Amino acid sequence: MKQILIITLIVFVQCKVEAQQINTDSTQIAKIFDWSLNHAKAYDNLNVLCKKIGHRLSGSAGMYKAENWALRTLKEMPFDTVYFQECMVPKWVRGKNENASFVFINNKSSKTKGKYGKLNVLSLGNSEGTNGKPIIGPLVIINDFDELEKRKDEIKGKIVLYNFAFKQSYIRTFNGYGDAVKYRSTGASRAAKYGAIAVLVRSVSTAPDNHPHTGALRYDTNYAKIPALAIGVNDAILLNSLYKNGKIDISINSDAHMEKDTIGHNVIGEIYGTNKLKNYITVGGHLDSWDIGEGAHDDGAGCVQSMEVANILAAINYKPKNNIRVVLFANEENGLRGGTKHAEKAIENNENHIAAIESDAGGFSPRAFTGTMNNEQLQKFKSWLPLLWNYGITEMNSGGGGADIGPLKEKMNTPVIGLSPDSQRYFDLHHATTDVFEAVNKRELHLGAAAMAALIYLIDLNGL
Amino acid sequence: MKQILIITLIVFVQCKVEAQQINTDSTQIAKIFDWSLNHAKAYDNLNVLCKKIGHRLSGSAGMYKAENWALRTLKEMPFDTVYFQECMVPKWVRGKNENASFVFINNKSSKTKGKYGKLNVLSLGNSEGTNGKPIIGPLVIINDFDELEKRKDEIKGKIVLYNFAFKQSYIRTFNGYGDAVKYRSTGASRAAKYGAIAVLVRSVSTAPDNHPHTGALRYDTNYAKIPALAIGVNDAILLNSLYKNGKIDISINSDAHMEKDTIGHNVIGEIYGTNKLKNYITVGGHLDSWDIGEGAHDDGAGCVQSMEVANILAAINYKPKNNIRVVLFANEENGLRGGTKHAEKAIENNENHIAAIESDAGGFSPRAFTGTMNNEQLQKFKSWLPLLWNYGITEMNSGGGGADIGPLKEKMNTPVIGLSPDSQRYFDLHHATTDVFEAVNKRELHLGAAAMAALIYLIDLNGL
Repeated sequence: MKQILIITLIVFVQCKVEAQQINTDSTQIAKIFDWSLNHAKAYDNLNVLCKKIGHRLSGSAGMYKAENWALRTLKEMPFDTVYFQECMVPKWVRGKNENASFVFINNKSSKTKGKYGKLNVLSLGNSEGTNGKPIIGPLVIINDFDELEKRKDEIKGKIVLYNFAFKQSYIRTFNGYGDAVKYRSTGASRAAKYGAIAVLVRSVSTAPDNHPHTGALRYDTNYAKIPALAIGVNDAILLNSLYKNGKIDISINSDAHMEKDTIGHNVIGEIYGTNKLKNYITVGGHLDSWDIGEGAHDDGAGCVQSMEVANILAAINYKPKNNIRVVLFANEENGLRGGTKHAEKAIENNENHIAAIESDAGGFSPRAFTGTMNNEQLQKFKSWLPLLWNYGITEMNSGGGGADIGPLKEKMNTPVIGLSPDSQRYFDLHHATTDVFEAVNKRELHLGAAAMAALIYLIDLNGL
Repeated sequence: MKQILIITLIVFVQCKVEAQQINTDSTQIAKIFDWSLNHAKAYDNLNVLCKKIGHRLSGSAGMYKAENWALRTLKEMPFDTVYFQECMVPKWVRGKNENASFVFINNKSSKTKGKYGKLNVLSLGNSEGTNGKPIIGPLVIINDFDELEKRKDEIKGKIVLYNFAFKQSYIRTFNGYGDAVKYRSTGASRAAKYGAIAVLVRSVSTAPDNHPHTGALRYDTNYAKIPALAIGVNDAILLNSLYKNGKIDISINSDAHMEKDTIGHNVIGEIYGTNKLKNYITVGGHLDSWDIGEGAHDDGAGCVQSMEVANILAAINYKPKNNIRVVLFANEENGLRGGTKHAEKAIENNENHIAAIESDAGGFSPRAFTGTMNNEQLQKFKSWLPLLWNYGITEMNSGGGGADIGPLKEKMNTPVIGLSPDSQRYFDLHHATTDVFEAVNKRELHLGAAAMAALIYLIDLNGL
């Protein structure tokens, strides 16, 4: 009986301690969201990044301007140290000329002169161009790689259009992206293998519009580096409808080319932990963007949200035990050199990385965190859901992370976590000219910053 | 032993039946979302409503155009009957002239001539104007009703600015709206009681901009009907900063006035139920909008989503047992005459209303349903959450419904349910010129339509 009483007492005391702990957490988390919604500067920072600097592809003038702005801005924030971490980055240049057109001759028409039309195009990142003169050739439309293999004998000397449509049925649009992006990333080399002279890729886009969406391709060095361009979805639909009734010739002009690697930087701010150990919690986004639009959601949003974490922790007067490192990564879009360098340096410096969080899925209303970590860590991670529920985070899921923090996972087995905002709008503007500041909502952006700060607070307080 | 076996068997069979039922439901619900995301016409319909018709305040030319468009469009859809339900609606007219300006004289300045500035204003709906000549008077700024009561002796002959700021801290912005809207709806009469000659109301807005947001006021007939105008948030902040350092005179011009009631209509489409009873499940939005912008989110979105339910049920080949009634309600914004008439007619016709659903919180990403009903019904309603979770509906909450279906609740005790989309962006554009088609996302709109169709399917199949 005495034993039972003691056990009951222990359980009771434990419950009370836990209840108190949770109470403290929820008060701090309420403060985090309250402060962020009322006072955060992320939106104003994003305005400057988008409107004063604009797009900022690796190796471009915009990249250097953005790096300097970021260094300057971080220095004005409550960090203990702010610095550049150098890394070589690729320099891909779109060049001046970029256009494509078609001539259609209807099978049933007696006219010898075809119908002419222009196409909305953007060279894919890393693509080679047409060397100063147009590439002209007959079009062959391929709906997926299975069809490519079946029709491989028809490809030689042709211009291939990959007409794979983004599957709108996916509720989480990142699944649709995963499905469709392989035509953009590997389609050029797979067509070159069979003798294609250029490829067009239907834009990986959910939007009901004709804006082309660029993005990186990877050449397989076994095959010719043929030019590859994204075309607007409506243009792809138009070509497909014409294709059934006749013959289409395509003309492509592109000055796109690679230049030699150049110096870039991760831009880093750190808050020193009170325990004075080499323990780090990293939070970041990538500073580079494609060379069109303003890289507002991709990934200006993730950068300014990560920066804001420092303001938020200072505002609630929380002194982290561990070092909090904010990284604005270089070169996520076409090389991942920043993320790779950061992980290499972490190993070199014998750093212990407790967790890394990335925001690179747009600055929309936060709905979930997704984490890749071991089961025990996952249990702890998921146990925080009730603390975040009232702020719109209704899921803590297994999986994912972020491209730039991927190397930390790979090389050091660091638990990695991605912020998952509502994904409905993201692929409307991802890698397109429409990814501009005006598409970002202040409250949504600041909720995301608060969600990341809250998670860092929980990890710092409780470990992972 | 035999008894236990029999009980076990019964439980097993029951479980299997339930499992099958749930399986059927989830297959149908998957079809609903799939079809809606790929084929729904709600977005195209909204485009026509916003761009070809535009805003459509009760009694305006736009209202008549919208009613005729809606009737025509419903007739082309899979309804068994489509009809107008007549109701008298108020006719408030903004008029041609509408402007306001200020003159500021700094206390510390020796200049006698003040600093002049224009203000961004919109007369509040139902407000009277200034009768063809400006109203000019000294400004008194009041932050909330408590302050009004304390300073009631200072109000006579003055123009009052209610400078109550939308509280950004609320995660669910409708709570912030509820908090702030009373200054817009009752502020004029409360100031008139103490002799104010006009009021300005800081716009009930979450946006970091200066667009004024209109909306209805209600005059207390015990006091003078003084003019009331919304002013942009930035203008309110400016006046407040000047006010601390000197004296401000305000000049207001407004031709706003009420005309006599006119004929309007609820526009209704019905799918006849297979059970041929007078049982109804109603789904709707309101067709009227304010006389600025395009009423895209408020509530063109709710209208086209409700209409789409008919397309969706037909597409999945579901024949409802009960009558499904789609109502595009008249006059939600400044009278609720449509909703009231609809409930009156329902009583008159001895209709039995199983449930009513409204979409009037914007066409954003759906996140929840909220229902007002008895406990038993609420249990059933909440039990459907797992069926909707994968489509982004992560809450089925108690409370709420919709303004237009409120009279069904009041008069007939009908269970009422509101679609709750993500609320972060809604009060950026609610009742402002920025509520236009371009602010609506196709996928988000169609997810909302699908969510409503899925809920109607569940209610029709299982009762409530």
